[in-house]
Amino acid sequence: MVPERVELPKAYRLINHGPTVMVSSAHGGRRNVMSAAWNMALDFTPAKVCVVIDKATFTRGLVEASGEFMLQVPARGQAALVLAVGQRSGRDGDKFADAALRTLDPELLAGAAGTPPVSHALLSTALEGSLAWLACRSIPEPHNQQAYDLFIGEVVAAWADPQAFSNGHWRADAKPSLHYIAGGAFFETGAAFEIK
Amino acid sequence: MVPERVELPKAYRLINHGPTVMVSSAHGGRRNVMSAAWNMALDFTPAKVCVVIDKATFTRGLVEASGEFMLQVPARGQAALVLAVGQRSGRDGDKFADAALRTLDPELLAGAAGTPPVSHALLSTALEGSLAWLACRSIPEPHNQQAYDLFIGEVVAAWADPQAFSNGHWRADAKPSLHYIAGGAFFETGAAFEIK
Repeated sequence: MVPERVELPKAYRLINHGPTVMVSSAHGGRRNVMSAAWNMALDFTPAKVCVVIDKATFTRGLVEASGEFMLQVPARGQAALVLAVGQRSGRDGDKFADAALRTLDPELLAGAAGTPPVSHALLSTALEGSLAWLACRSIPEPHNQQAYDLFIGEVVAAWADPQAFSNGHWRADAKPSLHYIAGGAFFETGAAFEIK
Repeated sequence: MVPERVELPKAYRLINHGPTVMVSSAHGGRRNVMSAAWNMALDFTPAKVCVVIDKATFTRGLVEASGEFMLQVPARGQAALVLAVGQRSGRDGDKFADAALRTLDPELLAGAAGTPPVSHALLSTALEGSLAWLACRSIPEPHNQQAYDLFIGEVVAAWADPQAFSNGHWRADAKPSLHYIAGGAFFETGAAFEIK
C-alpha cells in the first residue's frame, strides 16, 4: 500500500464523518500514539482540525514541545489497537515497541508530492493499516489548551490509503472506520448513500 | 415518543460516535435550525461540546443574542431534512414553517426531571424524529468565535428517544444516525460491537 496525497482543501473529508482517530506525536527521540474520539474538522482552507489532548497524557508534552501532531483514521480491524493505545500511557514504555503497531516507511509519505513541512520523526509515527493520515502543525492557543485541553492544528499534509479514499472521495468499498461510544463499545461506519 | 432525560455526565455519549447534528436556536421571536458536521464533545463534567457556526449563518446571530443553542442528533430517515436545512438560510423564511419539520411539544422536555435552565423558545425548536437533544448554554469565547467560528457550550440538559438511547447506552436496535461526508453524501451508523 502506497499512501496517496490528499489535496488539502479536501482533507476535512477524511474526518468529516466523525471517526475516532489516533493522535501520534514525536519529540526528542520519544514518540507516542493515543486515541481521541474528540476531534473534528474546523476549516477548509487553510485546512484545520480540533482535537482534545488531556493534560495527563504523554502525548500532550510531545505535542507542546514539537508543535506538531498527526491524526490517523483507523480501520475497523484496528479497533483492539485503538482501545489498547487509549488505555496505556506512553510514559510506561514506547507503544511502538508493540508488535501490533507497525509503522509505514516514512519515505512513502515524504515521497512524490514534495516533502511535507513536518519532522521526519512525526512521519515515522504513521501506522500501517490506518485509512488516512493528517499531519498537523499546532496553532498555539494557550487559553484553549489550558482551559479545555483543546488543540487546533493546521493540516499541512494529508494522505489516504487509495483503497479507502481516492480522488477526494471515500470509496464505496472502503473498509469501515470506527466511531467510539464508551467503555470499549464502538459503531463501525455503515453504508454510504447520497441525497440528490 | 416521550424523550428521556440523559444524565449530564453521560451526555457526551450522544455525540461521541461523531454524528452530524442539527443546531437549533431561538431569539426574539425568531428561530432557526442548521446542520453541522463539525461538532464534538469537549468534556464530561460539566458536560461541554464544541460546534462550528459560520458567521454567514442566521443561526450565528440567534446564538450570540440568546447565549444558547440545541444540538440534535438526526436519524437516518432525516437525511433529506439535514441536507435541506443545511442548504437554505433562515433569513429567507422560518424553516419550521416547512411541513417536514415537526417540533416536539416542549412540555415533554420541560417535564418530569425539572425545568431545564434554557428558554422555552429553545425547547420549542426540538424536532420530532431526532434521536437525541442537547440543550447548551454558550460559554463566551470571543476569540474562538471570531477567529474560528468555534462555539463552546455547556450541556445543561439532554434527552434521548428511549428507543435509541436508554440508561446511558445506545440500544443495539437503535435507528442509525448520520455521518456527513460532503456534497450530499453520507455514511449511516453501522453495526455496534464491543472490544473486551
